[in-house]
Amino acid sequence: MIEKFLKFLPANSVITAEEALRVYECDALSAYRQIPACVVLPDTVEQIQEILQICHAADVPVVARGAGTGLSGGALPVTDGVVLSLARLTRILEIDPELRIARVEPGVRNLSVSEVAKQYGLFYAPDPSSQVACTIGGNIAENSGGVHCLKYGLTVHNVMALKVVTMEGDLIKLGGEALDSAGLDMLALMTGSEGMLAIVVEATLKLLPLPVHQKIMLAAFDTVEEAGNGVAAIIAAGIIPAGLEMMDNPGIRACEDFVHAGYPREAAAILLCELDGIPEEVEAESQEIADLLRDAGATEVRMARDKAEGERFWAGRKAAFPAVGRIAADYYCMDGTIPRKHIASVLQRIRELSAEYKLGVVNVFHAGDGNLHPLILYDVAVPGELERAEEFGGRILETCVEVGGTITGEHGVGIEKINQMCVQFNSAELTQFHAVKNAFDPKGLLNPGKAVPTLRRCAEYGAMHVHSGKLSFPELERF
Amino acid sequence: MIEKFLKFLPANSVITAEEALRVYECDALSAYRQIPACVVLPDTVEQIQEILQICHAADVPVVARGAGTGLSGGALPVTDGVVLSLARLTRILEIDPELRIARVEPGVRNLSVSEVAKQYGLFYAPDPSSQVACTIGGNIAENSGGVHCLKYGLTVHNVMALKVVTMEGDLIKLGGEALDSAGLDMLALMTGSEGMLAIVVEATLKLLPLPVHQKIMLAAFDTVEEAGNGVAAIIAAGIIPAGLEMMDNPGIRACEDFVHAGYPREAAAILLCELDGIPEEVEAESQEIADLLRDAGATEVRMARDKAEGERFWAGRKAAFPAVGRIAADYYCMDGTIPRKHIASVLQRIRELSAEYKLGVVNVFHAGDGNLHPLILYDVAVPGELERAEEFGGRILETCVEVGGTITGEHGVGIEKINQMCVQFNSAELTQFHAVKNAFDPKGLLNPGKAVPTLRRCAEYGAMHVHSGKLSFPELERF
Repeated sequence: MIEKFLKFLPANSVITAEEALRVYECDALSAYRQIPACVVLPDTVEQIQEILQICHAADVPVVARGAGTGLSGGALPVTDGVVLSLARLTRILEIDPELRIARVEPGVRNLSVSEVAKQYGLFYAPDPSSQVACTIGGNIAENSGGVHCLKYGLTVHNVMALKVVTMEGDLIKLGGEALDSAGLDMLALMTGSEGMLAIVVEATLKLLPLPVHQKIMLAAFDTVEEAGNGVAAIIAAGIIPAGLEMMDNPGIRACEDFVHAGYPREAAAILLCELDGIPEEVEAESQEIADLLRDAGATEVRMARDKAEGERFWAGRKAAFPAVGRIAADYYCMDGTIPRKHIASVLQRIRELSAEYKLGVVNVFHAGDGNLHPLILYDVAVPGELERAEEFGGRILETCVEVGGTITGEHGVGIEKINQMCVQFNSAELTQFHAVKNAFDPKGLLNPGKAVPTLRRCAEYGAMHVHSGKLSFPELERF
Repeated sequence: MIEKFLKFLPANSVITAEEALRVYECDALSAYRQIPACVVLPDTVEQIQEILQICHAADVPVVARGAGTGLSGGALPVTDGVVLSLARLTRILEIDPELRIARVEPGVRNLSVSEVAKQYGLFYAPDPSSQVACTIGGNIAENSGGVHCLKYGLTVHNVMALKVVTMEGDLIKLGGEALDSAGLDMLALMTGSEGMLAIVVEATLKLLPLPVHQKIMLAAFDTVEEAGNGVAAIIAAGIIPAGLEMMDNPGIRACEDFVHAGYPREAAAILLCELDGIPEEVEAESQEIADLLRDAGATEVRMARDKAEGERFWAGRKAAFPAVGRIAADYYCMDGTIPRKHIASVLQRIRELSAEYKLGVVNVFHAGDGNLHPLILYDVAVPGELERAEEFGGRILETCVEVGGTITGEHGVGIEKINQMCVQFNSAELTQFHAVKNAFDPKGLLNPGKAVPTLRRCAEYGAMHVHSGKLSFPELERF
């Protein structure tokens, strides 16, 4: 097969040496590692079609990979499979300021879309924390979010069209530049499908006008409940901030000690709220929000006086992950979404679980859209702590499902949350997922073992619930 | 089979008398009629499951039906099939003002959701012209829009979760109340699938806060091009009006003569623009829009001074269809969407086709989202006019595809536009549609012959392009 690849790919586009393959053994969920048989780095869509045709004919599994920043193990290789890296397809093919779209290749970095669009007064809204490094193709695979998705939506809400190559090598266009498109809507189906249906080779992204005015505010609370009520009050008033983030006391301390953003270290929780729009709207809404937050029990509401202070408010939030990295040997970032009204009760449940598992937790998250990111602190050097952290994480996700939420907000399921899929969905639903997967990839070669568990796995998981967090690789089932 | 239905359905829920069946022979695309074998009117989800199980076992096709207001023939019965009417599932199950959702049965009328939500200061945004009569289930099947979908999106953007019953009778939940959901995103896939994948039995809809302030304005232009430029200028300025409608001179005259809305009868085109939001925002944006429209060449920009005048501006637009009904014996309402920048050139092309086919056209449409609704005027009593109107309509849709648009905006494909699907999609894409359809309904029993053409039909259509408008029913192929 490698010989076949080398007929149309230069030698430096086909990696087979174990040393070089090791770079690809995991994504950002580095607890799981597996060395693939081979990595290919095509430069063109035609090469991708040819690679997939060869793998299809030879029944070889293919795992697509962007920048490898994914947090759920979606790009974890398969031992006897090929990793298809899209890292060399990095062209921004077109920016049309009139249609307000960007047409890009999948290996384009998220942030560079906004950087290039800026000259037209436009930007691309989804902004995951990893936006300096992560790619549009990976964002589409995982339906990535970011701090601004409350107002501007997830990746699925910002993709207008896709070109994809099927496992058989066919090039298909989904969606279009108009508001609606005919036929079955396979665009959203593809977004978030974790490389299991087809390979994205081009994306048409929606661009938005850069906001003319912004205002950032910080509110402190004595209890997490009051902060949760503050979030509910803003949303109930019909205001959709550009961003509405929450941080609990361990998060505040970690960030403040690291960045000196000026956060109140003693507060039980803070909210960071960003408004954008035309000045009249932003000023009126920021006054209304300040009143709502005080009514909800805020002990302090601070408006950033200028851009510098606003950036300092955000700096703490943006540095949350490295800040937590300073206080814990290791941490495990979870990602679940709940209806907003359950924020306080779910945070309380997480505290109880934290006591039960004897592991600390820091909560820094997208409160406005109910997207939790508990960071579970552990030390891999202490025997049993990783396992406890994983099990604890699984319990948090199951709590999210119990209150009507879901096991993922923006990181995807990958290999990390595959057991929790058994909690979220019943067997008729899982069977339907398999049928749709089968409609695209009947041989089950695209990213096998990810995102949708087999019914057998769910039956086993049901039987051995207490071991939920832990998967051992030899048992990885083919999708 | 009818005996089996009568075991669990009361006699008045199973219609078999030809007289009574005739009521169901067509939807609002009344040029196509077909009498089904039987109509069933279940009251519960369990009954729907049982009906589908029976039909599945007996290989009997099933066509779902809401209020029958669809414009593309999506609810056209199959001669040897069952019509499954959802008309009796009319309960609003829940309004949760905190989560801002409504949970409804599929037979609930579109407008009644907003009527009930009003007491909580909320509304349901998609508002098709038929909103007094059409049902949520039908809206989901066709992915309906309305005058406000520019700002608030189509049905697909306003549905959070669905419960559906598969052809085999399984009940499946798609989506959820949280921002994201795990697994393959089948929610958008189901929306707009025209009853071909599963039967919607419950929908969770997004509710929005009623706007606190509104402003409606009217601008007149000497040329259609200038009006098109006005639309582009507003969007380019980053303003998203709640509604932005355009009407050409024949439309202005028809509406003015009927409703006396105060439209300038001599204008080549008018724009109606509605802004909503907080007062500061609405006032600032309406000033900006007035300036932009004058710059684009508006001969007159009128701000509605009060609610009554604003309602009068809208009254003409809302009465456009009956107004055209007064000036023509029959009309054929088309529905295609194009990238906004092509509005002027596509309208010009429609005028050329109008001369070629010797049939008048009135254009009244959602300019903001590029969703055209040319009304082709004809007289069914004049031999050949219906056929010419249908062929003319097909040419308009193909023009939409040529400029990068699509053959549907909000009315669906149904039976009406099935040939144009061959123009919009290539065979790899159509094959993928069939594979996904097959993943839900392997026997092809749900709404056969609609929305997605067989490859054979496309081959034939390609070969006999000039006869495009006309389909004869005996040749209707099974999906």
